[in-house]
Amino acid sequence: MTSSTTAAFLQPVRLSPDGSTLLLLDQRALPGRELWLVLNTIEAVAQAIESLAVRGAPAIGCTAALGLAVACRGFPVERGGFAAACELAIARLARTRPTAVNLFHALQHMRAALASAGEDRPATLRAAAEAYVAGELEACLRIGEYGAPLLPEGTILTHCNTGALATAGFGTALGVIRRAHALGKAIRVLADETRPVLQGARLTAWELQRDGIPVEVIADNMAGALMSRGEIQAAIVGADRITRRGDVANKIGTYTVAVLCHHHRLPFYVAAPWSTIDLAMLAGAEIPIEQRDPDEVHFHGGTRMTPIGVGARNPAFDVTPAELVTAIITDRGVFTPAELARAAG
Amino acid sequence: MTSSTTAAFLQPVRLSPDGSTLLLLDQRALPGRELWLVLNTIEAVAQAIESLAVRGAPAIGCTAALGLAVACRGFPVERGGFAAACELAIARLARTRPTAVNLFHALQHMRAALASAGEDRPATLRAAAEAYVAGELEACLRIGEYGAPLLPEGTILTHCNTGALATAGFGTALGVIRRAHALGKAIRVLADETRPVLQGARLTAWELQRDGIPVEVIADNMAGALMSRGEIQAAIVGADRITRRGDVANKIGTYTVAVLCHHHRLPFYVAAPWSTIDLAMLAGAEIPIEQRDPDEVHFHGGTRMTPIGVGARNPAFDVTPAELVTAIITDRGVFTPAELARAAG
Repeated sequence: MTSSTTAAFLQPVRLSPDGSTLLLLDQRALPGRELWLVLNTIEAVAQAIESLAVRGAPAIGCTAALGLAVACRGFPVERGGFAAACELAIARLARTRPTAVNLFHALQHMRAALASAGEDRPATLRAAAEAYVAGELEACLRIGEYGAPLLPEGTILTHCNTGALATAGFGTALGVIRRAHALGKAIRVLADETRPVLQGARLTAWELQRDGIPVEVIADNMAGALMSRGEIQAAIVGADRITRRGDVANKIGTYTVAVLCHHHRLPFYVAAPWSTIDLAMLAGAEIPIEQRDPDEVHFHGGTRMTPIGVGARNPAFDVTPAELVTAIITDRGVFTPAELARAAG
Repeated sequence: MTSSTTAAFLQPVRLSPDGSTLLLLDQRALPGRELWLVLNTIEAVAQAIESLAVRGAPAIGCTAALGLAVACRGFPVERGGFAAACELAIARLARTRPTAVNLFHALQHMRAALASAGEDRPATLRAAAEAYVAGELEACLRIGEYGAPLLPEGTILTHCNTGALATAGFGTALGVIRRAHALGKAIRVLADETRPVLQGARLTAWELQRDGIPVEVIADNMAGALMSRGEIQAAIVGADRITRRGDVANKIGTYTVAVLCHHHRLPFYVAAPWSTIDLAMLAGAEIPIEQRDPDEVHFHGGTRMTPIGVGARNPAFDVTPAELVTAIITDRGVFTPAELARAAG
């Protein structure tokens, strides 16, 4: 958590210096191009979230908070009109993606700030959004500190992208890997490519290569075989929502990684800010699972690979039951699911 | 096994009517285009196998046998020169792909025919190759008969392609599915897309759609989540090599399917001709696993998706230990691994 560490952070979601626009590193174009989107309206922000220009549960929350702070500069000035426009904006943003809980926390944070705002409501919302993002970044750094000692040396499997791109910076599961690497631990990473959107192949590989952390990409169906040959020592993933008993919703494929770790008696770690825990929810079966466009499965690199007329399934997330989770690494410390259930009361 | 069933067979590897050329349905172009390759030389046949224009353990064996029967028409006429050219051809074909045992059986079959050939050696080799292919087709039909009663009604998961395209026709695991469907069993198929070469998305989906058997494609990382929700009743796959104790080498990702079935207490069936059993081999660890070009993982539909400079792994097969196999369905009947070990002596 030194300043030299923080100075190098990639911040894929941030305000322009004057606070008038939201700058978003377009994750759909990576790793081929580093394209920044300049967003000013709620509709543009909502569509950026829906189209996966930004993804990753914490990053979506930050985008929504900063997006509202930017867009509200164009809202009616008088209190009632401003508040009504804010509620419409919040409702629009809440409809973008259902699974990750961070989005709803961020919107709740902004609503609370609005309720206590003085005359300069846009300034209040900007300050609230920036505080939210700073808190998220701080949470990632703490997760890295708590998690790094847990990782064994050797090869660590990860799924999807949980790095700077998925958060306010630094990352959750990738933050743990970054911190372990910075502490001199001899680790190398296997990144599941993570079909259909390839967050692992495109984003995790890109981030780790930038940081000089050894990484190789595998197809999602290869991890089991590598585990059976003793070539993987642990897995660590992020989370989009964690229930009170420790069930974990995360990118589709996470559950399979957890079953494979269980079968091979390998640790399966989940890294996420405390705010990912949905205290109102007990069982993972309650978590709404987003079903996305089957074309994400039909197409590879812009080319349709399945026969016309054949259907495809595309659940974006799955739920890993607490029984398969070794520990949950949060900014408040490390919890087994049983400990989490007690702490979450 | 009625004539009306066999009449409709797709035969993706066959001789031209005059026996002068090998016709090969190019599986790289499917499902977008039905492109037939016309091959006359051993080098062309070998490269078709290496480049996956034809794949699937039984189909590779058929291609090698028929390819030799075609190419030998250009070999020296006198006995010694013909035999030497055949041995060179067999050696070249044997170097194409190491994992599937069928290739080596087919080449051994052809070598034995050569040893007993009379004056018209090309005619002998053509007859031998055609007999080999006919035997392979008959084996698939028997596998279908033996396997169909085992499949539960509901949703059947399969991995890679084990249909007409992978065999002399009809298929192994897909043959069982075809036969069960023909018998009126209410089954629908989930086809793992099977990265990196997408045999499931492209070929299995195409074959089943042609046959009017309900099929949907999923990314390889989705099967676990669907099993956890009770949406899959059984899995059936093919094999590239089976050891005496019942360890099964098959397309990468098969092992993960087997672990998932084990975890969810679902049957995991392997369908393969008896000739896939390598009686000389006891343990799956002895099976040579082909490592293919990492570019198959880097590229999706012709577009590189990983950052330049990042590596990828690409083992083409994995080994599922006998302990995870419910039963092996062969043309000689259905065997548990323990029964197979006894039968294989």
